[in-house]
Amino acid sequence: MRFLHTADWHLGRMFHGVHLTDDQAYILEQFLELVREVKPDAVVVAGDVYDRSVPPTEAVRLLDDTLSRLLLDYKVPVIMIAGNHDSPDRLGFGNRLLAGQGLFVTGQLSAKLEPVVLYDSYGPVYFLPLTYAEPAVVRNTWQLEADGHEAALRAMIAHTTAYVPPGVRKVAVAHAFVAGGVESESERPLSVGGSGAVGSALFAGFDYAALGHLHNSQQAGSEKIRYSGSLLKYSFAEAGQKKGINLVELNGDGSVAVTVFSLTPRHEVRCLRGLFQDLVVQAQTDSAKEDYLMITLEDHQPILDARLRLKEMYPNLLDFDYLRLSRSGTLQGPAGDHRRLSEASLFAAFFNQMTGEDLTAEQEQTFRDLLDELNREEREATQ
Amino acid sequence: MRFLHTADWHLGRMFHGVHLTDDQAYILEQFLELVREVKPDAVVVAGDVYDRSVPPTEAVRLLDDTLSRLLLDYKVPVIMIAGNHDSPDRLGFGNRLLAGQGLFVTGQLSAKLEPVVLYDSYGPVYFLPLTYAEPAVVRNTWQLEADGHEAALRAMIAHTTAYVPPGVRKVAVAHAFVAGGVESESERPLSVGGSGAVGSALFAGFDYAALGHLHNSQQAGSEKIRYSGSLLKYSFAEAGQKKGINLVELNGDGSVAVTVFSLTPRHEVRCLRGLFQDLVVQAQTDSAKEDYLMITLEDHQPILDARLRLKEMYPNLLDFDYLRLSRSGTLQGPAGDHRRLSEASLFAAFFNQMTGEDLTAEQEQTFRDLLDELNREEREATQ
Repeated sequence: MRFLHTADWHLGRMFHGVHLTDDQAYILEQFLELVREVKPDAVVVAGDVYDRSVPPTEAVRLLDDTLSRLLLDYKVPVIMIAGNHDSPDRLGFGNRLLAGQGLFVTGQLSAKLEPVVLYDSYGPVYFLPLTYAEPAVVRNTWQLEADGHEAALRAMIAHTTAYVPPGVRKVAVAHAFVAGGVESESERPLSVGGSGAVGSALFAGFDYAALGHLHNSQQAGSEKIRYSGSLLKYSFAEAGQKKGINLVELNGDGSVAVTVFSLTPRHEVRCLRGLFQDLVVQAQTDSAKEDYLMITLEDHQPILDARLRLKEMYPNLLDFDYLRLSRSGTLQGPAGDHRRLSEASLFAAFFNQMTGEDLTAEQEQTFRDLLDELNREEREATQ
Repeated sequence: MRFLHTADWHLGRMFHGVHLTDDQAYILEQFLELVREVKPDAVVVAGDVYDRSVPPTEAVRLLDDTLSRLLLDYKVPVIMIAGNHDSPDRLGFGNRLLAGQGLFVTGQLSAKLEPVVLYDSYGPVYFLPLTYAEPAVVRNTWQLEADGHEAALRAMIAHTTAYVPPGVRKVAVAHAFVAGGVESESERPLSVGGSGAVGSALFAGFDYAALGHLHNSQQAGSEKIRYSGSLLKYSFAEAGQKKGINLVELNGDGSVAVTVFSLTPRHEVRCLRGLFQDLVVQAQTDSAKEDYLMITLEDHQPILDARLRLKEMYPNLLDFDYLRLSRSGTLQGPAGDHRRLSEASLFAAFFNQMTGEDLTAEQEQTFRDLLDELNREEREATQ
């Protein structure tokens, strides 16, 4: 059984004010080309297919087109789960009908969470579609205790594994933050405050775990437990990362060999830093002027119209800052630092600036609960 | 060939602040029961499946459930088009894949708008899925002149009919305002100012036209050109209307016989009018206290807490007014009249009240264009 493992497409994403749909269509075209070449037995998409619960129509059209071509033109079955950015109900629309066409979408957690079974010459492979579900949803669905993300995922695995006969090969498809993984700037935390992590031991019983959530292509505790990484770079902090598509070859004895392919984006994401004059000179010979750029100037004095003049050379200059000049003069630390802070730290800093006092533990918890609640609501947008 | 013709489900609709999803689930349960009984060869849904471009998740789930049961449990093919309330891209998601399961959804107008062909013992029946598309969309799609709704629909019919061999039976499925039809309060006009009407002669070449848009069950120019009406009553002005499900029996020679079924809603929609004391007495013996009610009091003086006291007897009292007491004292005409006015007339009246002058023809046209544009944007919501 050979399958491609990808995740975190985030269709409909915006990047510093730019709609990325054209970039996503460009890279998915390459992905389809890869499918045509390697002829996998399946494609696995491990969550965060869309960037938000109600994606723009362009994103809906792009997913429709991509899935239609995978299924109808290439006849490759697709196994897809919801991530914490997707609306499980909207993503899962038509799933009972689409299964008849080889498109296995698991959105909302259901009372019976059954594996998807595909076959090769060695027999069946059981794919467990461990769709993203908050602990409260797991508790309500199966009327059991599940305090925290680890317990919830363990319950989902136990429930679904009950449908799997002993001795067969099995693959986990999950959207989770496996402890020890490298976070990027562009993932929305599963729960604010970092309690969302699960141990990699949960996946020890699987021949392979196809993970989504972390945007950097990486292993998580074992070479059989892997993140493919996101489709594109979704923040400047990811400029140095590799994104991959994992080709997983699962042998008859359950052993796996993984090849990581990388695709070439329409626009690379780059950070430039230096003195204005040096950057201007450098731009003359820059062969990739259309890249998405963040430029940090090291000049000690502001340069007249620096941003505009750089943008003439680099039309996709999306972020611009001075290393040593604070914009407001009141925010502590170097300018731009606030973009690296988590929402919780940012709020704590703001609270301190406004009141001169630190958040109490209780206030901090209240803020985190509220933020979790807002993220949940966004995911389940009903209006 | 026997098929059920329905339209204007408006899933996700609100009615005077009440979410109607439970009422819609209740009546769709009856609809499925009807399908089980009459065993049609197909179900036709002529647009406005959802009430808005981004329906609430409950509505998405209800449609998913209804379609899954129609297709998987009853094995009845479904032909569905977008109406002016639907987002064509969102409704059309997965349509190429779903066609393999017998669900033929036409959302966005495509360069090739092909008929859906079903068969009975007399041969093929061609269903033309004339999805709702604004004239500008028709012009852009096929690079032709199409000024107004009539020309646009004529172009769509001509294009699609080119795929139909001569001499076979054909059925139009369209979402349009056929001139002479009876409008209700709850349809959103196709274009503000009434230019959206098309002549019934457009459908003369068809053995049957299954129409959506008007909420009253009715014929439009011929007994073969019909509106089924909406699933439920969506305004108090429709209290006296009949809603239907049309069972169409299309014979081998193209002749049709239509039977109109009516379903029983969970809550009837009623308007009561009278003196407070009389209504209180009448309520004692009212066996349908849970109906959705509009009550208009004929008393000349306000009654203390009248609304609250009536709501104790009628928990679903949703609209309340006095016949002879104007609320603001400045608006001309009897109170409540503004709810009967079109948006254009309402704005004209408001403009007159504010400025003491009437709208010029140019101002009026500007307002109508703007309103059309807003309605279009709502339909195509990208955010």
